Amino acid sequence: MNKKPLIFVTNDDGIDAPGIAALIEVAKKFGRVFVIAPSQPKSGVSHAITIREPVYTEKVDFYPGTEAHKCSGTPVDCVKFGITKLLKVKPDLVISGINHGSNASINVLYSGTIAAAMEGIIEGVPSIGFSFNKWEPTDELDLCKFIAEQVIRSVLNNPLPEGILLNVNIPDVSTEKFKGIKICRQAKAYWEEQYIEASSTNGHKSFMLAGEFLTNDDSDDTDLWALANNYASVVPIKLDITAHSVIPTLLNMEHINKEIS
Amino acid sequence: MNKKPLIFVTNDDGIDAPGIAALIEVAKKFGRVFVIAPSQPKSGVSHAITIREPVYTEKVDFYPGTEAHKCSGTPVDCVKFGITKLLKVKPDLVISGINHGSNASINVLYSGTIAAAMEGIIEGVPSIGFSFNKWEPTDELDLCKFIAEQVIRSVLNNPLPEGILLNVNIPDVSTEKFKGIKICRQAKAYWEEQYIEASSTNGHKSFMLAGEFLTNDDSDDTDLWALANNYASVVPIKLDITAHSVIPTLLNMEHINKEIS
Repeated sequence: MNKKPLIFVTNDDGIDAPGIAALIEVAKKFGRVFVIAPSQPKSGVSHAITIREPVYTEKVDFYPGTEAHKCSGTPVDCVKFGITKLLKVKPDLVISGINHGSNASINVLYSGTIAAAMEGIIEGVPSIGFSFNKWEPTDELDLCKFIAEQVIRSVLNNPLPEGILLNVNIPDVSTEKFKGIKICRQAKAYWEEQYIEASSTNGHKSFMLAGEFLTNDDSDDTDLWALANNYASVVPIKLDITAHSVIPTLLNMEHINKEIS
Repeated sequence: MNKKPLIFVTNDDGIDAPGIAALIEVAKKFGRVFVIAPSQPKSGVSHAITIREPVYTEKVDFYPGTEAHKCSGTPVDCVKFGITKLLKVKPDLVISGINHGSNASINVLYSGTIAAAMEGIIEGVPSIGFSFNKWEPTDELDLCKFIAEQVIRSVLNNPLPEGILLNVNIPDVSTEKFKGIKICRQAKAYWEEQYIEASSTNGHKSFMLAGEFLTNDDSDDTDLWALANNYASVVPIKLDITAHSVIPTLLNMEHINKEIS
């Protein structure tokens, strides 16, 4: 690239999470950085948008030298509002994270981090989501910063195909044990839910969601395999979720009776 | 099927929306019906789950002869809680809707209706989302009920491939003009956002999300084309959002320097 890129940074853990601070630090090595992230943690909000109430933002000053805003809305609101209303130009790259907790496998569907990166793609901007396979927030993020820098450089130098984002998950291992980057597919897995009784809410017996993450998909081309074997996983994701190969098998459904009796 | 199926009904417009009443009416033609839906409208919440506060449910009695619950959570919470905690067995089918408003094209990513059906698939249950291409809630849903009945019968008789759900969108046309069902792919499109200034919130200038829906994807195999041409669209959707075809083009990223300097 001839001129320095404009990099848009967001997350779902909130504007003051250690993960976004680390990502801002990496982004500043490449060019101008613009930050907008939720005021409060918004993990698990997926691709939610705020449509029944207004959103608002406020500048924050704890990232010196970097324009940064906190937003009342979701991660996807941050991308929409940040690009449309604050930046008013398309950035060169949207990066989201570094999430505190894995977004490998099926977690990609629940993740606000990845939804923000998907929204970046919808806005026509190359996008990457970064997540660290450790749920407790930490600022020991040296491996994460190293991988983020490598992946960002690669994407800036070798543009992604249109409509494709990257879901990058980073293992919780020492730099000595880290084995490298592996391009993967999303593993098949699921959460077996448990609901733990909580104190009553509005007079109703209420329950907190908990659960166990389970998979039988143990081949070596998945993101879960990569993480379990000390690799960072990079899964290319697309916005078109059509199961194209299934279309021919459904054509019989077109031959229903078209007459309403 | 030898015994009558157990059909799980949910939505994102809320337990008292006309669309879910219509879907319950159709479901009762096939077997036992179990209903759980959000207490309040939850459009646009996508695959959000409630993890920072407990969820609770309450029985409602306005669907005579049918066990029905309202839930404090999101559509995906309804599926998780309904199956795990209330039903305690897997239903034979999860149906979600009938949504007031289209979930064709990119709207599939923002939709709570479709997310609930995706969660049904994650739970291992065949699932279908139904949406009506008219935003204002209405109880004039004869065409919707007709199509829902045909699609449900087809899926009960011809099981869907594992991991596949159907996204069914129904045109807002007279039964005379309705042309039939078309199996489609998700059209490429996007929302061009506008933010309309609203009254201030907490002393901050605040903005309501609005926008215009735009597409250049006008080939005749898309869901948008089907709706515009008086067909109901049926798009098979998968949970694996990996862009498999892109994996080979990214392999150069595996050759980064593995040494942290």
